[in-house]
Amino acid sequence: MTAAAASGGKGPLAMICGGGAMPLAVAESVTKRGRDVVLFPLRGAAEDGAFDRFKHHWVYVGQMGKFMRLARAAGCRDVVFIGSMVRPSLWSVHPDLKGLSVIPRVALAFRGGDNHLLTNMGKIFEEDGFRMLGAHDVAPEILVPEGVLGRVQPSARDREAIVVGFDCLRAISPFDVGQAVVVAGRHVLAVEAAEGTDQMLARVAEMRATGRVRTPSGVGVLVKAAKTIQDRRFDLPSIGPKTVAGVVRAGLAGIAVVAGETIIAEPDQVVAQADRANVFVVGDPPGPPA
Amino acid sequence: MTAAAASGGKGPLAMICGGGAMPLAVAESVTKRGRDVVLFPLRGAAEDGAFDRFKHHWVYVGQMGKFMRLARAAGCRDVVFIGSMVRPSLWSVHPDLKGLSVIPRVALAFRGGDNHLLTNMGKIFEEDGFRMLGAHDVAPEILVPEGVLGRVQPSARDREAIVVGFDCLRAISPFDVGQAVVVAGRHVLAVEAAEGTDQMLARVAEMRATGRVRTPSGVGVLVKAAKTIQDRRFDLPSIGPKTVAGVVRAGLAGIAVVAGETIIAEPDQVVAQADRANVFVVGDPPGPPA
Repeated sequence: MTAAAASGGKGPLAMICGGGAMPLAVAESVTKRGRDVVLFPLRGAAEDGAFDRFKHHWVYVGQMGKFMRLARAAGCRDVVFIGSMVRPSLWSVHPDLKGLSVIPRVALAFRGGDNHLLTNMGKIFEEDGFRMLGAHDVAPEILVPEGVLGRVQPSARDREAIVVGFDCLRAISPFDVGQAVVVAGRHVLAVEAAEGTDQMLARVAEMRATGRVRTPSGVGVLVKAAKTIQDRRFDLPSIGPKTVAGVVRAGLAGIAVVAGETIIAEPDQVVAQADRANVFVVGDPPGPPA
Repeated sequence: MTAAAASGGKGPLAMICGGGAMPLAVAESVTKRGRDVVLFPLRGAAEDGAFDRFKHHWVYVGQMGKFMRLARAAGCRDVVFIGSMVRPSLWSVHPDLKGLSVIPRVALAFRGGDNHLLTNMGKIFEEDGFRMLGAHDVAPEILVPEGVLGRVQPSARDREAIVVGFDCLRAISPFDVGQAVVVAGRHVLAVEAAEGTDQMLARVAEMRATGRVRTPSGVGVLVKAAKTIQDRRFDLPSIGPKTVAGVVRAGLAGIAVVAGETIIAEPDQVVAQADRANVFVVGDPPGPPA
């Protein structure tokens, strides 16, 4: 799926919206390109009040029948899922008949971890005639570009930690674990699994505060990468102002992600905040870093 | 190094003692076998008051010269390090001249992570004519035996999680990360790095409390294994009553470790506590589980 093909899709774009600033940023970007959007903010996940500028329908998690009916009526074939979501609640609230009918498959997918879950949800939508796209297909400027984003450069030591981090993420990738590690020197301080990046960074901050981690402040890198087996349409790793704040609290030197495979929320604020805190943000080219 | 060879070592055994109940348990076991011990409890790590039954000298961390002088004077050639220790403080307090002289090598080893650190400390002792043994060499009954330890058996589902856990630990082993994961079904919920097993279990308990993890209570296994590149003389994974308590709080079904390669503290209490809480404890044979 190329960005060109996606943006050339027929009819308005249906967007299922979770929490955070991403859904509205993507909606704006798509409408600026001249394509209409119909938003489906999810109750309990999407934030209230911000959706009035766009045609939208609030739905409960699990109301797949309602979503499909409304999306079809609006002439949507392409669907994007965007925004944050504490995973399991997604499948536990207010299922309608259609939602109920897919629960066995969703439950099976859930047992297989994140990656299977999202891929299987995609299949279910596609069997009903929809086309699942990634948010980056419809708004490519939300991806981290290659190179250093602000004015702070990673040191040689940071570079070493970044290589260890990407290697480690590749090794755990088959286990459908999280997408991030914190590395200081050649020492892996934390590995993300179900807790999420923000919680992992809080743990590193705490380990520093209690003296369990003694590397000096300003040493260590947050490294994020997509799982190798990941369905990249709807589960790319992402960073945003909150990530920078967490990295600063954890006393790290910076953030390394894979260029073109990582979503960045509010890029201007990310760069301003990183520059102010003397923290680097770098997009490395995909593939094993040199 | 066989247990027979070790217990047949000449002269009393020098034991450098960190925190917890393990040092005294091993000291008792060795003296019961008819070998004298000289204990070197570490200030700030070993607990006060319990060492009077044995010949002992308190030392500060870093007083390698003092240790070597006293150990030689007592006729000790064999040295064991046993007990818990928040790692970095080990190298940061009260170094004497000998301690100072090894700091550059220790610092280099530290950058390489746990495994290199301990292996390099072993080399330093050996260059000075000592022989480093593992606690299990001198007290083999502290190792977890093969099979189920209490009356609770792992289910087929637990078995599946155990296989995933050991596979995942093998994959991250080259990165000198921690020695434990929590797996529910085929889903890795948590990976231990610098935080330690107790903190990782507390995280799983918290993720359950906040709804981030929704697998029902009684599902999920703590899986521990030695790193494949680990120097097994002095860094075997260990479990004890605290581990069982953490597993119960995290709502897990049980604990799986590698038989013969895992230290168990206070085994009677571990089994009693696990039985009471309906939690299994199993020692799997080394090598890829079937």
